[in-house]
Amino acid sequence: MNLLVRQKFTALKHSRILPLSFFSMKYSDLSAFPETKRKYIPTSGIYPKGFLVGSLHCGIKKNKNKDLTLILSTKPCTASAVFTKNQVVAAPVEIDRKLLNEIRELNKDHIRSIIVNSGVANSVTGELGYKNGKLMAEAADKYIDQFDSKTNRHIENNPEKLLSKSLIMSTGVIGQQLPIEKITTGVKQLEGKLGDSHAHWMEAAAGFMTTDTFPKIMSKEFELPSRKGKYRFCGIAKGAGMIHPNMATLLATVTTDASITQSLLDKALSYAADKSFNSITVDGDTSTNDTVAILANGLASTENSPWKISTEDQDFESFKTNLSDFMKDLAILVVRDGEGATKFIKINVQGAETVQQAHTVGMSIATSPLVKTAFYGMDANWGRILCAAGYSSAKINPQKIGLSLIPSDNSPPMELVKNGQPLPLDEDRALSILKLEDIGVEVTLGMGNESATVFTCDFSHEYITINGSYRS
Amino acid sequence: MNLLVRQKFTALKHSRILPLSFFSMKYSDLSAFPETKRKYIPTSGIYPKGFLVGSLHCGIKKNKNKDLTLILSTKPCTASAVFTKNQVVAAPVEIDRKLLNEIRELNKDHIRSIIVNSGVANSVTGELGYKNGKLMAEAADKYIDQFDSKTNRHIENNPEKLLSKSLIMSTGVIGQQLPIEKITTGVKQLEGKLGDSHAHWMEAAAGFMTTDTFPKIMSKEFELPSRKGKYRFCGIAKGAGMIHPNMATLLATVTTDASITQSLLDKALSYAADKSFNSITVDGDTSTNDTVAILANGLASTENSPWKISTEDQDFESFKTNLSDFMKDLAILVVRDGEGATKFIKINVQGAETVQQAHTVGMSIATSPLVKTAFYGMDANWGRILCAAGYSSAKINPQKIGLSLIPSDNSPPMELVKNGQPLPLDEDRALSILKLEDIGVEVTLGMGNESATVFTCDFSHEYITINGSYRS
Repeated sequence: MNLLVRQKFTALKHSRILPLSFFSMKYSDLSAFPETKRKYIPTSGIYPKGFLVGSLHCGIKKNKNKDLTLILSTKPCTASAVFTKNQVVAAPVEIDRKLLNEIRELNKDHIRSIIVNSGVANSVTGELGYKNGKLMAEAADKYIDQFDSKTNRHIENNPEKLLSKSLIMSTGVIGQQLPIEKITTGVKQLEGKLGDSHAHWMEAAAGFMTTDTFPKIMSKEFELPSRKGKYRFCGIAKGAGMIHPNMATLLATVTTDASITQSLLDKALSYAADKSFNSITVDGDTSTNDTVAILANGLASTENSPWKISTEDQDFESFKTNLSDFMKDLAILVVRDGEGATKFIKINVQGAETVQQAHTVGMSIATSPLVKTAFYGMDANWGRILCAAGYSSAKINPQKIGLSLIPSDNSPPMELVKNGQPLPLDEDRALSILKLEDIGVEVTLGMGNESATVFTCDFSHEYITINGSYRS
Repeated sequence: MNLLVRQKFTALKHSRILPLSFFSMKYSDLSAFPETKRKYIPTSGIYPKGFLVGSLHCGIKKNKNKDLTLILSTKPCTASAVFTKNQVVAAPVEIDRKLLNEIRELNKDHIRSIIVNSGVANSVTGELGYKNGKLMAEAADKYIDQFDSKTNRHIENNPEKLLSKSLIMSTGVIGQQLPIEKITTGVKQLEGKLGDSHAHWMEAAAGFMTTDTFPKIMSKEFELPSRKGKYRFCGIAKGAGMIHPNMATLLATVTTDASITQSLLDKALSYAADKSFNSITVDGDTSTNDTVAILANGLASTENSPWKISTEDQDFESFKTNLSDFMKDLAILVVRDGEGATKFIKINVQGAETVQQAHTVGMSIATSPLVKTAFYGMDANWGRILCAAGYSSAKINPQKIGLSLIPSDNSPPMELVKNGQPLPLDEDRALSILKLEDIGVEVTLGMGNESATVFTCDFSHEYITINGSYRS
């Protein structure tokens, strides 16, 4: 349960007393978020250099909540993204995928911004949806040109200016057209609203939210073994339902001031996505919009050096591991805010022949409505866990399977099944473990030495309430 | 929507005024069943000849409901069964599968009874569970011997007497041991309680129930093209949760007085299972106990003729189609009693290249929690349907997909998406369609001429309530 414990500390370490500046930045509505979730909302952060962010309500959401966010880098970034594997993909996914592939051919840092709207997903919107997505990117590009002109930045006149400098992301209802005028007007109104303070980043994260109950944002400082100086990550994620990423959660952005080549950034992101967003599930529904994008602008303390992570050396390994751990913590925040979630469940599958086998068994358990409702009811109905392992597409040996509950209070594991045989059940102890907010499950397959960990939440009445009336 | 309409008539045709004999048989608690479900409970039936059934409370269930049922044929039957594809299988599945394979080698009618308990599934119960399953079959065999001796039937002394004459089935909580003494004592107490009246069959169906809200039983008389006389089916099913059969629902038995060879019965059952129980889902969980068994004793009006369905002629085709239609109606009853269900949803996928492709897309939609909660909320959030089609493992073409709602009041279909492009949504009309208890969804893939239909229900608050506290 090290990760559960670590996760708590990671989330708590920024939870200091609110600084005055926080309120003075008009981000004073922490009370608007559920009391049990406030511990996951940072009250300060150390953000990557050279990024400015801003957010506002442009009129998509019926309430007055923020629904448009711009993340801007003062310098072109190496960019990479992983997308949903759903065959029905939203216009932004199509547009971003094409753009990033074209940039890969240019082999040059190019992306300057990510523009994100919430409320409408721009998915299953046909040709008009595609056109609106392009207009959204164009609006962000115009903003960048004006920003550069006002800040006396050199505007290069080279072929890649024909390619958009902006990635776009949309989240919300599927099948509705983007109110594109509201978005283009909104982008113009971001003028003067961008900044790099903690409050600015918090508002940016708030602009990503749909049914999310709290803004999901993390920041982290890290070092690389062979270099002096510090590097930073900031991650924002949104997602509460339709979460069973087959690439990513609904939307997540990671910004960093590290410097890294395109091919190694692609490699690190793919590795980290598998360990993080591809290992969580809320309801088993893979969205049409899932995107995790990373921008690396290289503006860390080593900014004036031409140095880049450009070979698979110890610096790359360290960057990759740092990114993977960071994205896992970010993905866990999404599970903690799973629609209606009351429990956080970590499922660790060990003794597999391959990582894929362990992952498949874990995901089968994590998506079972019967397992998830049993955790909601704090019912030690462990037969459902074995049942879900049994119908997974991965091969298992029922005679060798073992099952334990891992208490999150660091008390000893509670063994329930050994070599396929049930052990006597101490109901009182089981209930005391299941009453905790964080619950660990360990499945041993007895077939090999590989393992995988997946994260999920329970299925509650509130999930049904939220999703029975999402559009209304 | 022909099937939806037909299903209603099928269910209603036995719903006459309750005959006095029904009450005199002490089966008077129809009021114990939900008002909205009573229309699915037959008040009379025409049952296959030569079958006797009985049911009682032997003490497994905490309440006083029936938990032990015996179905007995006065003559050895040709028997066949399909089982769960879960890798973790309950002891009864293991025992029945072995027995039926041994009987197939004997190539002789042999099975006399099915003994069924509810309350404990005898799954993940190790060696003791296997032993208890054998003892349960043995208890039923002893009952048969005594029955034969009292009714002066000839007891053959031949090798197959070493094989059990009884199939066993268990349903209920996984991971608990069968209270085997209660079951063996209970079987003895069935003495004098067996009969062939409608009330006896109703009580038998009640003995199958766990979280089911009403007994699921149907009977049907049919004819064969080249033969005189009538034949009959009786089907009993149980199942309300853990329903995503990959062979069958939790438990179903079909008895018939038709006469058919082993290999053709196997063939007909496999065909019918695919069209019925393998085309329904409640919550996506494939149980460890799923079993559909059929017994054919040949005691129809042609009883004294040595005639059997023994070639793939028009009689076989007719039997197969009759069985398939009958089992589909029975499977639909399981969906109608899906845990917490308020809506019955028929999903028809057309224009596929293969039946399997259509089935896979349909099942992906039918298992999506987001689709199911939207139906519960009567929310025309159709994007979720396309999203679920898109993440199915079957290949689709998003540019060619079409989607319509098919109203169950026989008003014209409501087209929502054509060639991947959304059409304007008339919210009022959509709501009027979604308010009906039965809802049809038609998806056109535009890729070929094959189709498949699957059946599911919605996901409600009640589902969570039931499954959060099933064991308690």
